[in-house]
Formats: sequence, structure tokens, C-alpha cells
Amino acid sequence: MSAPSYQLLIKNILKMPLAQASKKQIVYRGDLRFTYPQFAERISRLANVLTTLGAQRGTRVGVMDWDSHRYLESYFAVPMMGATLMMVNIRLSPEQIAYTINHAEVEILLVNKDFLPVFEQIRAKLPLLRNVILLTDDGENIAGDFAGTYEEMLAAASDKFEFPDFDENTIATTFYTTGTTGNPKGVYFSHRQLVLHTMMLMATMMMAGLNGRISREDVYMPLTPMFHVHAWGFPFVATMMGMQQVYAGRFLPPVVLKLLATEKVTVSHCVPTIMHMILSAPEAANIDLRGWKVIIGGSALPRAMCQAGLARGIDIFTGYGMSETCPIMTLSHLKADLVHDVGSGSEAEIDYRVAAGLQGALIELAIVDDDMNHQPRDGHSIGEVVARGPALTPGYVKNQEASDALWKGGWLHTGDIGTIDQNGYLHVLDRSKDVIKTGGEWISSIGLEDVILSHPAISECAVLGIEDTRWGERPIAVVVLKPNAAASEDDIKSLIRARTVTGELSKFAIPDHVVFAQSLEKTSVGKLDKKKMRAMYGAVKSA
Amino acid sequence: MSAPSYQLLIKNILKMPLAQASKKQIVYRGDLRFTYPQFAERISRLANVLTTLGAQRGTRVGVMDWDSHRYLESYFAVPMMGATLMMVNIRLSPEQIAYTINHAEVEILLVNKDFLPVFEQIRAKLPLLRNVILLTDDGENIAGDFAGTYEEMLAAASDKFEFPDFDENTIATTFYTTGTTGNPKGVYFSHRQLVLHTMMLMATMMMAGLNGRISREDVYMPLTPMFHVHAWGFPFVATMMGMQQVYAGRFLPPVVLKLLATEKVTVSHCVPTIMHMILSAPEAANIDLRGWKVIIGGSALPRAMCQAGLARGIDIFTGYGMSETCPIMTLSHLKADLVHDVGSGSEAEIDYRVAAGLQGALIELAIVDDDMNHQPRDGHSIGEVVARGPALTPGYVKNQEASDALWKGGWLHTGDIGTIDQNGYLHVLDRSKDVIKTGGEWISSIGLEDVILSHPAISECAVLGIEDTRWGERPIAVVVLKPNAAASEDDIKSLIRARTVTGELSKFAIPDHVVFAQSLEKTSVGKLDKKKMRAMYGAVKSA
Repeated sequence: MSAPSYQLLIKNILKMPLAQASKKQIVYRGDLRFTYPQFAERISRLANVLTTLGAQRGTRVGVMDWDSHRYLESYFAVPMMGATLMMVNIRLSPEQIAYTINHAEVEILLVNKDFLPVFEQIRAKLPLLRNVILLTDDGENIAGDFAGTYEEMLAAASDKFEFPDFDENTIATTFYTTGTTGNPKGVYFSHRQLVLHTMMLMATMMMAGLNGRISREDVYMPLTPMFHVHAWGFPFVATMMGMQQVYAGRFLPPVVLKLLATEKVTVSHCVPTIMHMILSAPEAANIDLRGWKVIIGGSALPRAMCQAGLARGIDIFTGYGMSETCPIMTLSHLKADLVHDVGSGSEAEIDYRVAAGLQGALIELAIVDDDMNHQPRDGHSIGEVVARGPALTPGYVKNQEASDALWKGGWLHTGDIGTIDQNGYLHVLDRSKDVIKTGGEWISSIGLEDVILSHPAISECAVLGIEDTRWGERPIAVVVLKPNAAASEDDIKSLIRARTVTGELSKFAIPDHVVFAQSLEKTSVGKLDKKKMRAMYGAVKSA
Repeated sequence: MSAPSYQLLIKNILKMPLAQASKKQIVYRGDLRFTYPQFAERISRLANVLTTLGAQRGTRVGVMDWDSHRYLESYFAVPMMGATLMMVNIRLSPEQIAYTINHAEVEILLVNKDFLPVFEQIRAKLPLLRNVILLTDDGENIAGDFAGTYEEMLAAASDKFEFPDFDENTIATTFYTTGTTGNPKGVYFSHRQLVLHTMMLMATMMMAGLNGRISREDVYMPLTPMFHVHAWGFPFVATMMGMQQVYAGRFLPPVVLKLLATEKVTVSHCVPTIMHMILSAPEAANIDLRGWKVIIGGSALPRAMCQAGLARGIDIFTGYGMSETCPIMTLSHLKADLVHDVGSGSEAEIDYRVAAGLQGALIELAIVDDDMNHQPRDGHSIGEVVARGPALTPGYVKNQEASDALWKGGWLHTGDIGTIDQNGYLHVLDRSKDVIKTGGEWISSIGLEDVILSHPAISECAVLGIEDTRWGERPIAVVVLKPNAAASEDDIKSLIRARTVTGELSKFAIPDHVVFAQSLEKTSVGKLDKKKMRAMYGAVKSA
């Protein structure tokens, strides 16, 4: 008998909490609690349900749900059967949702009742869809053309399923990104890639010496939607570690804050918008947030938010990546030789916490110019961030042209402009489409936003490059005031002007106009939608 | 352009400390210090030297050296070229060394001058060997048939080398185990396996909550010889993390203790014999060992040693594996729900620290009977420990029969007898060949040794099963007294007898004889050589 070939399969992640006999739980909204053996049984039940509905190797199974134990069960059951999990981006427009479900060739869909209004609107446009399973928290049975409700079907199914062995390069998941032009594009990842991403993320977090130290004793609650590239891959990590996991359902700041306190959550991740909502919720004032580790990704972590988080005792720092990269590529871990006073909120500490961070295990990053020439890692040389690594998407589903562009020159193009400093930290200055080219200089919109957000009256801010016949582009700022706060256009401009005097910023950086708005446009995943705002505010003149 | 296929290659480990701009050093005996960029240059130089000597894809390159920066350089340069590194087991007899070098088909050998007496004795018996590089600490040039000295040849070589891409399943390393019967057998590992072992070890260490928490701020010094399955894989981990690394040369307790203090070493690993030598060295009394994390493997960690280590403030715990398994499969990490008073040395804490531990990321373990039936994980059911995982050797070099036996039934057979408890911890009771079968019961020789070592006069101990016509086997104990200490045969037997009264041990466990010896027989890697001792002491009667 020779050694069996060992394939990197998602089922091997699930084996770990059982093998290590974790006594922790998977908690849904504080109401439902499952042990790991129960969780594993439910995964087998789900696989049997899907098999009954005709799912087999390669079948696409879609999920439309909030963050839940059910979603986590689908992360495992669907790929472990050899089927492909499609995480439906519920923040797209109904037309776009229909497009992505059809493009992914989804045959079975799990739909939370909260999304039925959208779903019923598009159902007739989904010719490939054969079966729909209804997800409800209370087991409520709603009339309609459903194969059944999730809990009833699981209860009726066997809790044994023999998950097959197959090639580790089998596609496990797919997710559609919100492209800024054209239709959403589907990224996809194999079992090998997801297992490696899990191991890479754990190996990277293991290196942490001063911040972001996580162990099996931590309590995990994602604040990134689970449809968004597997909640950045952390649920796979949390499961491998047999951690206590908490899923909050639909994102509501009071619910999340209550769970933080009652479930003693110690580690989360989210986009800045979510962190902003949590920190500014009235309920946050009465909750002890000390020791909560929060990885901020999706957009740059503003310095002011980093300071506010540290002031609350939160270990707040940055992770960087994108849907195409599985996604985590860097974490902003501090090094003892650079930061001597962790938690103090010193300039150096903030500098490194808001940086994209150190590249993670097996991730290779470079800064290149338009001809793919690698730039020095000196903290000054600026160019596009490109990447290599074992977990990056091989391309976009059925879109060779976009795939070729993504991998031009053998590196994955992030579309971000950045620099890598002498200490190995990546600093992302801007999305290449958001960087403002004015008077022959490149101005980082993120850098200007950081300065404006340091004004005590400003709650949110977006700096946009607006076409200008003379200078190419000129910056304008769109700001949202805090409740009962006031600021003038000149207050904002003066803040920037002060930085031009010290030489930190070019004089071209002073915005032409400051627009005061009630809210900012956001994309489906909570990022600033600068494309939309450029269209909205491109013709605005100062008040 | 489509995405390039990403292969798991050892060169990708080396990229990490450079990408993360580690400012740490690789230190040899406190005398030589290399930055990571210098280390990477030396690896390129070594690859150029080996190329000049005719090394190419698949060439076997052997190393006979103490723990050194040079050995670490060979860990990378040789496999990164596509050649195979053979770690020569320098503790074998000269005849066995010659056998293994020939069997591995080594063409180029790096030899430390300390091993020249052995090497010159066997050189004529190595027909495949074409070139020998001399390793000396001081650059001393010794007359002989050498291609040159290591430092001279490196100095003359280019510091640039384009390490090629190739299939991740390319063999990277080989090492010959000291079989208890017949000739040594060669295990081997591919690039994929070594990269995965590195990631698995990091992912497993990341989970640590209460003990064994390691980060990039730690200082690493191996105390396992580097020829012994890549010093258990930790140098690859330390390099990926860009840690400060210290290599001590030939193992001498005073040198090691001095380096522990001057280099502020915080993490090491070794066999119990080495730990015993360190703790009992006169120099140890004056050195602060608090916070030193030490993983004990190769043999069981005796309770008394664990207590002695904890009393010195050492975070001492167990790792389990064997040459065939790359090697680390488990670590004895404590869990907060089981141990409430870490560092106290409570019974529960010792129980878990001396256990083999929790199975590591992607490792699958089972306890089976002779017919491969899996036994319950209840802490009582005993059987052979078998394993699966991505980093286990596919078999033995050119030995199909032994490979088939190793992988009988699709699992790797460890030859160890153990049990897995309800909390997921593996407890290894004995080597299957060392377990004592007497009066229809199985007695763990390791368990008896643990009891005997609790006697304050006993320094070392081996319990052996000796053939007995009536009972099958009967235990005898061989003990070494501490300096100026005294104990009688009856003292030892009384200790065991007390445990039989409480029901902890069977009455069959009381040894028939206790032999007082000056020292115990050890294998090449410092383990008790029970086979030899059974032959020596099989006929001994009580004094």
C-alpha cells in the first residue's frame, strides 16, 4: 500500500475542531448555540438535503442570507460535496443580482425571507434555477414555490454524509464583485486556494508580536457580510481553530453592540463605515470595548478612526486585499523596533496601524510602473500594487478579456496605487482610478480625507478628482457634519493649507470646493462610491 | 495572460523575511551575525558554488555539520536549485554513515573538519562522491582532497542566482532514520510538503492561547541537531517569520547556556536528554530561564522534568512526531477550560504538558487495533497511533517493502501505542516494541519511568520488558543516581507498589529487578536505546 495522495480539501478544515475536541460553540444572535459536533452534523444534513434536490459535483448553489450559522454551514457543505457555493451579493440591484445568479448558473438557491421581495421580483428571470430553500429564523413557513424551509428539511435529513475525495483544484466558491464599469465580474477559488488562504492567514497572524494576537481562546464575530469573499476567509480560520463564533444576523449596531458585550467578543473585522456606525451608536458609550481586536479592510483606515478606536481600548489595525485575492494579503502588525509604546496612539503607532501592512505568508507584492518595472521599496517610489500568491483568483468567470487584464505580465493587478517602505509596510495611497492627477502631481484622495477627518466637526468625507481643462483634474471635498456640529468651507481648506505650508502636501492639494452633504454614496459593500459621487458633484461650484 | 500556476516552493519561504524587511539576524555561536539580505546572498553564493561543482536538478548534496548558519544556508540553497539535501546522521557508526551516503547517491558533500576522522575512514567506500567542501569555523585550510573551503568558495562566487521554478512535488530533502533493525531507512520530503509543514506548524502555534505563544519578536535557538529532520522544521518557520535565529555549533551545555543568556533566546526545542543536560549543568544555576519556551520531543517529557522546568519558569511542553512525519504532528497546548492556573505546576497542567498534545492543523490522527478498527477517543481505548496529513513521507527511499508496511491500510503507522482523550489530547504510552506485555496486561514503560523519576535520588531511568517464560515479559528498571545521592532497589519498588495500592498501576507493574548503572544507552538522536539495553540487561538478576 503506498501513501494516499493528500489533497487540500475544505473538509480537512472541518476535521480540526472535532479532532481537537473544541468545547466552544457557534452562536446565532445569542439565541441559538451549536457545538462543533452538532455543527458538523448539520453540515451533513445540509449535504443530504442538497443531494435530494439534485445537487452533484459541479452544481452551483447560491445563498442569499445575512451573517448566520446557516451561511457558515453552506461554506462547508456545498464545496465539501464537490458543488460550488455562490455567495450572492445582496447589495446589488435586483437586475444585477439576477445577472450574477444566471451568469454563475445557479440551480439551487437558499433565500432568507427578508430577501423575498427582491427574489420574487427576479424569479421569472432565472431560467436555470430549479429549487429554492427558504431561510427563516423562527421556522416560519411562507407560502410560495419553495422546496421547503431550511430547518424542516435539515430535520428530515440524515446526519451522516460521506463527503467524497476529489482533486484539490476543484472550484469551491464564487463571488461577484461590484465592478465600477459594466456588469459584476465573478471571482472563484478552489479548495486548494481556500485551504491555503486559511493556513496563510493563520501563519501570518501567528507572527503578530504586539497587536492582533489571536488564539483559540478568542471569541470571533464577523462584521463583514458573509457574502463578501467568505467574510474575508476568517470563518474558515475560526472553524479550523475551533473558536467560539458569533453570527449577528442582519447588521444593526444595537444588536452587534449587545452581542459584543454579552458574548464577550474579542476579535472582529469590518470596513471603516461599519466601524464608524458602531463607534457613533449611542449604545457604544456604555460598553467596554477594551481588548477588542478589529481588522479594518475594504477601504483605508482613517487616522482619526484609528485614534478613536485606540482611545476606546480597541486593538484596531488594517488588513488589505480585494475580492480577487481571496482576500487577505497584508496585516498591519506592529514591530517592536518601530513602535515602543503600543496602545499609546503615538504618531508612529498610527502610521503603521493605518498602513496596509506587512505582506502575509506566501504573498508576494511589488510596486510597478506602467511598463511593469519594479520600483524600489523605499517608501517614496509610487506605482501600482501587483501581487502573486497561491490563493489569488485565476481570473473572472467566463470573461477571458478581463482575466487577461487582471493578470497582465504574470502578476495580479490590484488597481491600487501604493508604496512599500523600508520596513516592509505597504501603504496604499489610492485606487488608481481615485488618485487625483493635477498639475503634473499625483494627489492621494485618501490622504486628503485623512486630514479633513481630523476636523472635530466632520463625520465622513470623500475627496474626488474632477475633470479640469487646465490642470487635468482638481480635488473637491464632500463632507458630512457630525450631529449639531458646524464647519465652514474655509475651515476645511485651512486644514489642508496648513499641511501645504509644512510641505507635507503639495499646494495643488487644496480642494477647489467643499460640498456639505447629508450622506455619502456607498457601494454594495460599504465603500465610498467615488464614481457615483464624481457624477453627482462634478459640476458643483462652491457655496 | 492567464494566472501563473503557483507552486509551493522553498524559495517562497525565503522571500518572506526579505519582503517583511526583517531587521533581525542569524547568529552563529555569538561570533558571526548575518542580516537576512546577507543570508539570502550567501544562499545564492552557495548555489553558484554547487553549480560549479556540477550540481543540477536532482543531484544529491550531503551535509555533515553541527548546528550552524551554514547548515541553514544548505536548507535553502540545495533544494531551491532543484537538488536534494541529504542531512547526514552524524551519530551513526562510520559504516552506517557510508551506507546512507551511498544509498542516497550523494555526489557532493559538505563536511565539518570535526568529522574528518570519520570521513577519511569511509571516503574510499563512497564511489559516487565527486566533490567535498570543507567547513571550518575559522576558515582554516586543511590539506586534503577538497574542492575548497566553504567560506573561500562562497567569497569567490557571485551573489546572484536565478532559482528556477519547478513542480512543487520535486524532492527537497532526505534523512536516514536509525532503524532498530537492519540498515537505516531514508525518509524524504518534497517542496510542497516542507512548505505545508511550515505553514501547518505556524497555524498550529497560532492557536496557542496559554502556553507556547510565539511571535516574530521571539529569539530562536534549536537544540535538536539540524541533521535530524530539518531540526523538526523550525528553522523554516523561523526564517519565514524573519526571527532572530541563534545556532550554537557543537552541543556543549556551557556554550548553549551562555548563548541563552547573551542572545536572549526565548524559544527552543530538544529531546529530554538535552534538557536534562542543560538543567543539570552547573552553569544553569546562575542563568535566568524564565519565559524560555521549550518544546520537548523525540521521547516523552517526564513529569519530573516538566515540574523542574516549570519551577525554573520555563514554558516547557511537548511536541510529537517522528522522522517519517516531517516531523511535528501535535503540540501540547493548554486550554483555558482545562487548566486554570498556568505556570502553577498543578497536576492538570502537568498532565497536559506531558501529553503528546492536540493534533496540529491538517493532521489527522487515529488510534487503531491490529485490524485497523478505529478506537473511541475516550482516553481509555489503547491502540497504535496512525496518521494522515499532507507532509508525511510517501515512503522509504528504494525500499518498497518497508514503505508498504509504513502505509498499511492507507494510514502512516507510527509504531507508537497511545490513546486520545475526550479533550482531544494524544497520550503516547509507549513505542509498540517497548510496551511491556505481562500477565495479559499492557504496561507502559514510560509510565513506570515517570514514577521512578519522581524519586529525588534518581537522575535517569529506563524500564525494559524482559522475556519471561511464565508471564510473557516482566519489567526491570535501569536507573542512574544523581551525584552524591543514594537509593535502594526496595526504595524504587516501593514507589511503584504505592501506585498499585491506589489502583493507578497494575500489580504486574512492579519491576522484578532494579539495576543501578552509571549511564543509559542512547540512540544517535539521544533517545533511550531500549533494544541495546534489553540485550545488555536481559540476563541481570537483582543484587
